[in-house]
Amino acid sequence: MVLGGDGFCGWPTSLHLSAAGHDVFIVDNFARRDADAELGAESLTPIEPLDVRREVWRELTGNELGFRRIDVAHEYDELRDLVDELRPDAVVHFAEQRAAPYSMKSAAHKRYTVDNNTNATHNLLAALVETGVDAHVAHLGTMGVYGYGGGLRIPEGYLRVRVDNGDADVEREILFPPDPGSVYHMTKTIDQLVFAFYNKNDGVRVTDLHQGIVWGTQTPETALDDRLINRFDYDGDYGTVLNRFLMQAAIGYPLTVHGTGGQTRAFIHIRDTVRCVQLALEHPPQHGERVRIFNQMTEVHRLIELAELVSRLTGAQIEFVDNPRKEAFENDLLVENRSLLDLGLNPIRLEDSLMQEVSAIALRFRDRCDLDKIPCRSRWVQEPREAVGTADSFDLPGF
Amino acid sequence: MVLGGDGFCGWPTSLHLSAAGHDVFIVDNFARRDADAELGAESLTPIEPLDVRREVWRELTGNELGFRRIDVAHEYDELRDLVDELRPDAVVHFAEQRAAPYSMKSAAHKRYTVDNNTNATHNLLAALVETGVDAHVAHLGTMGVYGYGGGLRIPEGYLRVRVDNGDADVEREILFPPDPGSVYHMTKTIDQLVFAFYNKNDGVRVTDLHQGIVWGTQTPETALDDRLINRFDYDGDYGTVLNRFLMQAAIGYPLTVHGTGGQTRAFIHIRDTVRCVQLALEHPPQHGERVRIFNQMTEVHRLIELAELVSRLTGAQIEFVDNPRKEAFENDLLVENRSLLDLGLNPIRLEDSLMQEVSAIALRFRDRCDLDKIPCRSRWVQEPREAVGTADSFDLPGF
Repeated sequence: MVLGGDGFCGWPTSLHLSAAGHDVFIVDNFARRDADAELGAESLTPIEPLDVRREVWRELTGNELGFRRIDVAHEYDELRDLVDELRPDAVVHFAEQRAAPYSMKSAAHKRYTVDNNTNATHNLLAALVETGVDAHVAHLGTMGVYGYGGGLRIPEGYLRVRVDNGDADVEREILFPPDPGSVYHMTKTIDQLVFAFYNKNDGVRVTDLHQGIVWGTQTPETALDDRLINRFDYDGDYGTVLNRFLMQAAIGYPLTVHGTGGQTRAFIHIRDTVRCVQLALEHPPQHGERVRIFNQMTEVHRLIELAELVSRLTGAQIEFVDNPRKEAFENDLLVENRSLLDLGLNPIRLEDSLMQEVSAIALRFRDRCDLDKIPCRSRWVQEPREAVGTADSFDLPGF
Repeated sequence: MVLGGDGFCGWPTSLHLSAAGHDVFIVDNFARRDADAELGAESLTPIEPLDVRREVWRELTGNELGFRRIDVAHEYDELRDLVDELRPDAVVHFAEQRAAPYSMKSAAHKRYTVDNNTNATHNLLAALVETGVDAHVAHLGTMGVYGYGGGLRIPEGYLRVRVDNGDADVEREILFPPDPGSVYHMTKTIDQLVFAFYNKNDGVRVTDLHQGIVWGTQTPETALDDRLINRFDYDGDYGTVLNRFLMQAAIGYPLTVHGTGGQTRAFIHIRDTVRCVQLALEHPPQHGERVRIFNQMTEVHRLIELAELVSRLTGAQIEFVDNPRKEAFENDLLVENRSLLDLGLNPIRLEDSLMQEVSAIALRFRDRCDLDKIPCRSRWVQEPREAVGTADSFDLPGF
């Protein structure tokens, strides 16, 4: 089962797993397409309805993709009954609102994100326990659960600490102390607590994949036919910083870098995302093993380096703009990511493949771009309380 | 504002704050009374409808208790509008499902607890931010967020740790690593994340009161008139271990101690609960201060000691019964609780006041006792997966 299998990560993952010989059943409520309608924004790439996508895939490969429309956060009985009917070996859980700026737009967006993400995760676990289905849950987390590590090297989930316990020093291995930067990120730290409890109490096997900012659009499977094409979001809510640079370059605008561009972020290509999920599924945790946490990222870059790279590839100018929050603009990021590499991941390098993205996506579809949608208009802090700070200053878009 | 002001802690807190000269406005959706109906159990003490309670209080003291019926978890607009209208100095937040065994009864109870508690807490914070109301939030947490400390002394919320960061050892003060023992306790660890985020991002001032098992029924205010009497729960879902012993003694049954009785728990009298909330409100955190965490407990006892105390006071026999889970039955508990003592709390001692509870409540109302309701029937782990363990084995009732 792939919950959220119509979305930006869910769709290519569903195809990749299907191509690898797995029986794939998609669950989605089309919340992401609804958000397009709400925001008046759409994918730069023209995406087909899911029925068309599934039919094209069947024609091309002979593989069926099952589908049921369920709101995982609110239609528990339907979810549980489907779990009971399919008794899946694994559930890939993408059924969450996944944009930080969107989660900060208003009280309603904050509440939607908390309600949807927390209940979706908890409903899945409650359904597995109620039905007695011993499925491995692979969940898309985020590097944002770590904040920027607070000056610490970022391990894969667990941190070894020493505590002065009065009579003796003791050592413990604990979940890395969470430091979410938005309501969206906060929900992923909540997910960690829910996974830890159901793992301890009910023995549910979970792999939490803390992903960096995804770049790229196509995978070998989505590239097979234009009707299988994946989303490319460049709007201020759902677009990532790299997609913004690519769009700006494609339409002849300067690349806007906030402050010094010293913000350091972790990245991964969508083709590596789908491979990582496959690797995680094909190497499930043992029964009795604690929640397995992998950092699903392959490269770390300062944003100024990315802007310079896009500029070199496209000739675009770089423009530095003011940033209201000094403190968020310079950080180091030392991230451990050995687990997925050890399982065989061979990463795609930004340096090698970004030009492909420029030509195959940004230039090809630039006429569909709506300039008004590029800036982020969410504010992290409400005006009445503190008059500084726009979402852009914290913008870990899509992170 | 007192959210959940009709409940076991909320009602005496409302009266205590009103008696101390504060203007009190109660919000409640009567979920606790609904649970009585669902479980076919009721308070041993006969409690009046809230309207009667408020009217009696007005007659006795001249003080008005405001009231609006709002489901804080699901009626956001009503909550926000009320916050905007009242612009309270402080909000005491008790509006959560508070029983561990109840939270483990079924998938539906787990889901209700997660949905209600997480959304109630988040809605309150979102409403404060949306309205720009700079109220201090005093929240009832639980000692259960710490688990039993995992062999560590339990500090007031924050733990100092050292980390080997490669080139150097560094020190950090982190939230004590959570280790919840039930879905209910898990929601209180989720609350901690929500508070930490809104404190960091929006400057909301929060005091989280991690309470031990509450014993006792009456406060000076609820004792003023029988129609103000507080709840006394002895059923397997909402009753605490001490109330179970008291009921067993009052009806001439042996006190049932699981295993060796070596389980150690933290306790506090309801009269100290209401004083602690008052002390927290009258000493709010500074603007810019992180979430303040107090351990709201005054004594630590092994359950066998409690049984022996009740036995000495009442002549009841003690009966040892099997326990299915060895590991949960012997633990130490070293808890820091200096903050509230330093603010002036002068604790009521179990040793001194338990007899009062036996005669004024358990013996007085014993004819209302329904024997069938005493055992806990929730199971922490579902039969199909693992056939051992009943809720009683983990029973931190009301903890």
